[in-house]
Amino acid sequence: MRLLTEEALEDLAVGAAILGTGGGGNPYVGKLLAQQAIAEYGPVEVVAVDEVPDAAVTVFSAMMGAPTVMVEKIPRGDELVRAFEALQENLSRPITHVVPAEVGGINSTLPIAAAARLRLPLVDADGMGRAFPEIQMCTPTIYGISATPMALADEKGNTVVIETIDNHWTERLSRSITVDFGCTALIALYPMSGADAKTTLIPATLALAEDLGRLVRDGHGIDAVLARLRGHRLFEGKVADVERRTVGGFARGEARIDGTGGDGASTLRIRFQNEHLVALRDGEVLATVPDLIVVLDAETGKPITTEELRYGFRVTVVAAPCDQRWRTEAGLELVGPRYFGYDVEYVPIEERARAEGDHAR
Amino acid sequence: MRLLTEEALEDLAVGAAILGTGGGGNPYVGKLLAQQAIAEYGPVEVVAVDEVPDAAVTVFSAMMGAPTVMVEKIPRGDELVRAFEALQENLSRPITHVVPAEVGGINSTLPIAAAARLRLPLVDADGMGRAFPEIQMCTPTIYGISATPMALADEKGNTVVIETIDNHWTERLSRSITVDFGCTALIALYPMSGADAKTTLIPATLALAEDLGRLVRDGHGIDAVLARLRGHRLFEGKVADVERRTVGGFARGEARIDGTGGDGASTLRIRFQNEHLVALRDGEVLATVPDLIVVLDAETGKPITTEELRYGFRVTVVAAPCDQRWRTEAGLELVGPRYFGYDVEYVPIEERARAEGDHAR
Repeated sequence: MRLLTEEALEDLAVGAAILGTGGGGNPYVGKLLAQQAIAEYGPVEVVAVDEVPDAAVTVFSAMMGAPTVMVEKIPRGDELVRAFEALQENLSRPITHVVPAEVGGINSTLPIAAAARLRLPLVDADGMGRAFPEIQMCTPTIYGISATPMALADEKGNTVVIETIDNHWTERLSRSITVDFGCTALIALYPMSGADAKTTLIPATLALAEDLGRLVRDGHGIDAVLARLRGHRLFEGKVADVERRTVGGFARGEARIDGTGGDGASTLRIRFQNEHLVALRDGEVLATVPDLIVVLDAETGKPITTEELRYGFRVTVVAAPCDQRWRTEAGLELVGPRYFGYDVEYVPIEERARAEGDHAR
Repeated sequence: MRLLTEEALEDLAVGAAILGTGGGGNPYVGKLLAQQAIAEYGPVEVVAVDEVPDAAVTVFSAMMGAPTVMVEKIPRGDELVRAFEALQENLSRPITHVVPAEVGGINSTLPIAAAARLRLPLVDADGMGRAFPEIQMCTPTIYGISATPMALADEKGNTVVIETIDNHWTERLSRSITVDFGCTALIALYPMSGADAKTTLIPATLALAEDLGRLVRDGHGIDAVLARLRGHRLFEGKVADVERRTVGGFARGEARIDGTGGDGASTLRIRFQNEHLVALRDGEVLATVPDLIVVLDAETGKPITTEELRYGFRVTVVAAPCDQRWRTEAGLELVGPRYFGYDVEYVPIEERARAEGDHAR
């Protein structure tokens, strides 16, 4: 157990934007909400997932919606609590722990605000090991854990509780409700026992985000980030164009980056649905989901989210391996490139990088 | 208190199709479900709203969605019960009575099936005195009664419970969920005390539907129906064309009827959103919501719902006054022609008919 410090919060926000792979919303908004909540309700205890008692009742906290809208619609804070209250009414035992649904963007820091307001400990683990755009894309789904009962709350005072036959239905219904709510919702979901949390969650991802943030803050630059993530450089360039639409409660689009230096003759395209999905250099696939595709400021190594990306930014694009569970058949069915509509075989980034190296030699 | 007989059910289904003003879904499907449920679970007690104890907990039962889809997607029956069970979990006291949300089409007979399966009495009253297409269009809304908590269930096993800041939000959220469910949902909503039920509901509308059905069955014809409804003949003709689209969970469109007999030189257009909204003869308004616009078989006086209406049918179109509460400012704000997008002043059908008579003289 440890208490979250102000400094840790700063680092966490930066690291979460790296693991957010372009999506997950603006981490600074989440950081401010977390700071406010800690100032008002006291510090937040962070516990390792191994420390959670088997009989605990853990619940995911997150904001759902299009990041493009999230940055303009800052939660008031009490929606977080109302989502938990509505869920609690549909559970037989009291909720004991808050868990970030994903480590990425606002959804790494928002659960801190939820934990502070609810006076519950926060578990250092998450259900993605990165950010993904849809509700069923959580490691518990691989283990057959239901995302429901799930509660959604908006800033106006509306709440919805859904109970579905599978986690794809959870995504479908909650997405429509989120769109009706004005493209953002505060959600509480995947209630599960401590025992299930230990089996199904990806451990120590808040600590990972903090480490990444610290490396950037200390000026260790992109190489240090790559080393921590066991990642690979994909491309150096200048943002030439960003196409972005908010469709069906998602931010969808493509970023085009013109190469500089060794990549001078090439163009990289990154397609995204909230998060980066595929990186293509001159039409050739360099990396795909579920591996992490991250856009960093070429100078400082700071992460740049999709909605911040602008013409002229000088960037380094990197890719890093995802959690091994996403690489199983069941994992790839949930989050592989084909799920997102790309007719591309998933090849782990390490293998792609090795083949690329051989090719270049 | 009385027990519903098989004969009453037949009459109720026919009368409900009259009061359904073209919408409310196919009453015969609801009748079959009610018959099945009574055969399996025993007869249903019907109580007058005045007999309901003040401390009772009454709940509306209905099917929500586009009638065009309802006729093709027959409920299994257990969805009715699952909606009530999900709602019950969000109420502090046990539900004691089932109330039809509307008297019209399937929604007059489906609550009988719900009452049978739940072994609860059915109240002879409803929240519309006819059928209307949207959730907030219930007399309790005029009195500030919340439609939520409201539960929705589908045939697959999904359930949703919503809690909203007003009944327009209830409509909005439940409509999206209904569309996701495949355009139909079984719903339980407007939980209220017996005291509130007595104040806000329209009494004895099931008895009215039964009376209307009996008049048709006994061959008393259209004049008898008109007398019972205090209604007026609008038009005689032959259906020339029906345009129908299923949009946003509603059946929307227009029926065109070429006049016969005294109306030979004219054409009547009836616009509908599930229910008939406006009747225009050669562009001149003859009747509008909230008054009832009903299409009857010219021979038998049997009602014809929108989704049954076909080219060549010989019909008599009639109109009848709605409940007085719909004619207040608050009522017309909810269900007047302007709410439905028609820039027409509401004039009670009696006045329109009187002016028409003066004009003809």
